[in-house]
Amino acid sequence: MSKPMEKPYTELCTHSLTSIHYRNENLTEDILGKRGFTEVVFAQILGRWPDADDIRVLDAALIAIMEHGLTPSAIATRLVYMSSPENLQSGVAAGLLAVGSQFVGTVENSAILLKQLIDSPLGVEAAARAAVRQYREDRKPIPGFGQHMHKPDDPRAAKLLAIGREHPRFEGRYLAAIQILSREVDAAFGKHITINATGAVGTLLGELGVPPVLMRGFSVISRAAGLVAHVAEEQRVPTARFIWDLVDHEVPYRGTGEGHNRSGE
Amino acid sequence: MSKPMEKPYTELCTHSLTSIHYRNENLTEDILGKRGFTEVVFAQILGRWPDADDIRVLDAALIAIMEHGLTPSAIATRLVYMSSPENLQSGVAAGLLAVGSQFVGTVENSAILLKQLIDSPLGVEAAARAAVRQYREDRKPIPGFGQHMHKPDDPRAAKLLAIGREHPRFEGRYLAAIQILSREVDAAFGKHITINATGAVGTLLGELGVPPVLMRGFSVISRAAGLVAHVAEEQRVPTARFIWDLVDHEVPYRGTGEGHNRSGE
Amino acid sequence: MSKPMEKPYTELCTHSLTSIHYRNENLTEDILGKRGFTEVVFAQILGRWPDADDIRVLDAALIAIMEHGLTPSAIATRLVYMSSPENLQSGVAAGLLAVGSQFVGTVENSAILLKQLIDSPLGVEAAARAAVRQYREDRKPIPGFGQHMHKPDDPRAAKLLAIGREHPRFEGRYLAAIQILSREVDAAFGKHITINATGAVGTLLGELGVPPVLMRGFSVISRAAGLVAHVAEEQRVPTARFIWDLVDHEVPYRGTGEGHNRSGE
Amino acid sequence: MSKPMEKPYTELCTHSLTSIHYRNENLTEDILGKRGFTEVVFAQILGRWPDADDIRVLDAALIAIMEHGLTPSAIATRLVYMSSPENLQSGVAAGLLAVGSQFVGTVENSAILLKQLIDSPLGVEAAARAAVRQYREDRKPIPGFGQHMHKPDDPRAAKLLAIGREHPRFEGRYLAAIQILSREVDAAFGKHITINATGAVGTLLGELGVPPVLMRGFSVISRAAGLVAHVAEEQRVPTARFIWDLVDHEVPYRGTGEGHNRSGE
Repeated sequence: MSKPMEKPYTELCTHSLTSIHYRNENLTEDILGKRGFTEVVFAQILGRWPDADDIRVLDAALIAIMEHGLTPSAIATRLVYMSSPENLQSGVAAGLLAVGSQFVGTVENSAILLKQLIDSPLGVEAAARAAVRQYREDRKPIPGFGQHMHKPDDPRAAKLLAIGREHPRFEGRYLAAIQILSREVDAAFGKHITINATGAVGTLLGELGVPPVLMRGFSVISRAAGLVAHVAEEQRVPTARFIWDLVDHEVPYRGTGEGHNRSGE
Repeated sequence: MSKPMEKPYTELCTHSLTSIHYRNENLTEDILGKRGFTEVVFAQILGRWPDADDIRVLDAALIAIMEHGLTPSAIATRLVYMSSPENLQSGVAAGLLAVGSQFVGTVENSAILLKQLIDSPLGVEAAARAAVRQYREDRKPIPGFGQHMHKPDDPRAAKLLAIGREHPRFEGRYLAAIQILSREVDAAFGKHITINATGAVGTLLGELGVPPVLMRGFSVISRAAGLVAHVAEEQRVPTARFIWDLVDHEVPYRGTGEGHNRSGE
Repeated sequence: MSKPMEKPYTELCTHSLTSIHYRNENLTEDILGKRGFTEVVFAQILGRWPDADDIRVLDAALIAIMEHGLTPSAIATRLVYMSSPENLQSGVAAGLLAVGSQFVGTVENSAILLKQLIDSPLGVEAAARAAVRQYREDRKPIPGFGQHMHKPDDPRAAKLLAIGREHPRFEGRYLAAIQILSREVDAAFGKHITINATGAVGTLLGELGVPPVLMRGFSVISRAAGLVAHVAEEQRVPTARFIWDLVDHEVPYRGTGEGHNRSGE
Repeated sequence: MSKPMEKPYTELCTHSLTSIHYRNENLTEDILGKRGFTEVVFAQILGRWPDADDIRVLDAALIAIMEHGLTPSAIATRLVYMSSPENLQSGVAAGLLAVGSQFVGTVENSAILLKQLIDSPLGVEAAARAAVRQYREDRKPIPGFGQHMHKPDDPRAAKLLAIGREHPRFEGRYLAAIQILSREVDAAFGKHITINATGAVGTLLGELGVPPVLMRGFSVISRAAGLVAHVAEEQRVPTARFIWDLVDHEVPYRGTGEGHNRSGE
């Protein structure tokens, strides 16, 4: 731990005895009461103020992936909240740990693929065709495509992409790339496979200038809000103990010990 | 695990092959593109749509506690993110675990105290005087008061309370209670002690009808966004390794072993 | 953040280019291959080497609370692991967040009560009687007593206490206190209520000299191991998706939206 | 969520009113007081009882990576513990989230590489040479090699491998593979590069029959214990607030706002 390092710094916040600045703006004079939460989230993360069209797109992206019922993250949140009700934050943190490579965190994978197509010297169409071929050979799912609970189309994806197309100043490269990729996917599989919600969110965040490696952060913010709603409901309608009983009963023990849940009895 | 339980249910979301509803509203037809994130967060958590004045207040509350520089939560997030950069959500979750009894999570304690004053048969003023006396006897800090980094006043608190007073339909019981409590605090200590940001946020959330036991959820949502901004900055300006070196160097080892950081050498 | 503070230090570890010390001992020369894990855990946490009897007791305490089937913590771990299989640590961390005030973390509450009885000027018996009366008046469960899955006695508790009594150098104050408390509990309720596993573990850790405020740490170590076994089983026998389907199906949606899980259909 | 799934089961635990079994063994009759923690951890995770030589190896592996001073995980644990002292488990969980791809979690990467060499049709030596060439071309570090704080050799690695060679019934394929790989690494770089602790731990766990994808679980158990020792020390010698002050002071704000830590002042 000895090599000299350039000294880091932060641009996010400073405070004196009587003031706080978020980046370069006075929090109490310039922000509170004048700006919305989505707006300030965008500015703090990306370093520029969004305009009204940007806000509309980011609002839609955040709303679309905040809730999908009793998902793994929501169940984890509820179980941990029951176990540690004095720590609402622990329940939410447990659920957020499920925003990984398999579900809501997939926004990132989708955007990485789209970026590759956009940057490819082959052109988007040829690059998309090659990418689809490769994923099929590797028998891997194509990021941003497929949703077994929504057919023929994930309703969120179509709506989100429409909202993106209504933004008057989007360059449209991500929006074009996902449409071209969609055509190639359908052609290769010989049937229609839906663009899913995280694919559409990756597209919109790409148009907003969010680097793919940061996109999962917006999934986390969105899902944090969704999980707080699950805690609120758990306070009104306790569900976690029912879930515990259910799972304990339905997943039997297999072995030679004596117990309440031996398989085959 | 055997007593019968009433079967629980959820009101938050349902989905069919072609639609998703958040509570009773169709996500794609009624919400996306038409509603803002703050608005939907409020509706999902509290079960009613906020009006424009409610949204302004909630926006201000969420913004005010989202960022305060290199706090314990931000440092934890950055260190975990460096250690596990493939998992942005782990870094944020680690930081959120610091939203506990000592810092941002204190919104709840403040609102519980205000609610007690409001509900007291003694009336708010007498109840406030008694409460202040009790806290002083127990040598405990009064929830919602004091901020050693901001003097004489936490600038966020004054602004937030002003925004609350501008809401035309607030009943004003929490707003009145914190003012009365503030007078009693100053009188008892013989000097001015500031209302702090979490005290003001608890007041506003109380006026919005959020139960105190749920208020920490809004701290979590707000801080999740703030911590994503720290991850974004960490991606641009790596700081975590500098912090590690700094701490390793400045906290010496005390003992008889041989090493790089022996105390007193 | 400006008041001067006494400079802290660490006694846990130092390292040079060619050596590592755990506290004052050379890791490679004095510890590895010569000491067991339980032993080193004890020494690092408590600052003294345990003898063989201490190790036997600590081993028993750690083993007893490591596993109890598909508990909330195990279910949370499995769901998060499925969602983020590249991050085994996230699954385990999510489950550990359930080691709170309601379940395994209760070791601490039990020991705090025993310590109060031991230190009471009334003597243990009178203090125990008064404590039981108070808990009954407050309609609160008595820490360390009651286990609805094990009747008439939690088999772990009796065995753990027996192991504690076999330790030739225990002072026996915690062991005596829990027996006296148990008699008072039974007398007050007019029926036998079992000492539970966490009550017995708190007793043993108290005899070993662990401060109550630190006891939950041993629950965490123990349960971390138990949760890794659940991840290992999840790798062999995937269960998390089954749990998700089960919960999604059994917790119906209530509202006017259209979906797959409307209540009453 | 509709395709039928084979019903899962668990082999880890069952319990009746009067007994608990861990797998097929009665916890109170056959395990408590008779078996050590390391032994039961091994048996629950891997499904077979270890012998005394296995236990010695696993003990050494767990001990070796449990502590390395004020690492990112230890700092995160201490900061979260200060912020939420009522939740020891939250502090430890935050630190465990740092057991990822960069530090302690790397045991897995090392073992995966060794397994590839062992299974290669080219033979270990040729496969090792090819692998080293590939890593160098990709400018990636070779898993299990290099430790900038220990030179010329990580003292833990040599000792751990020696302990492994003392096990009379190890097949020795992992032990051989890492030695061959080490020769190839040194030859390719033209200088000696140490096998590091996680490389050696991966070797030992491989010999014990732990699948690489599960190895990180042992890092988590080990580090959980190490982090509890940091919490214990934090209780005696509070360090977290010092760390906060230090970082807040040493990482300056860069921008046009007014504050306490403006860069260049």
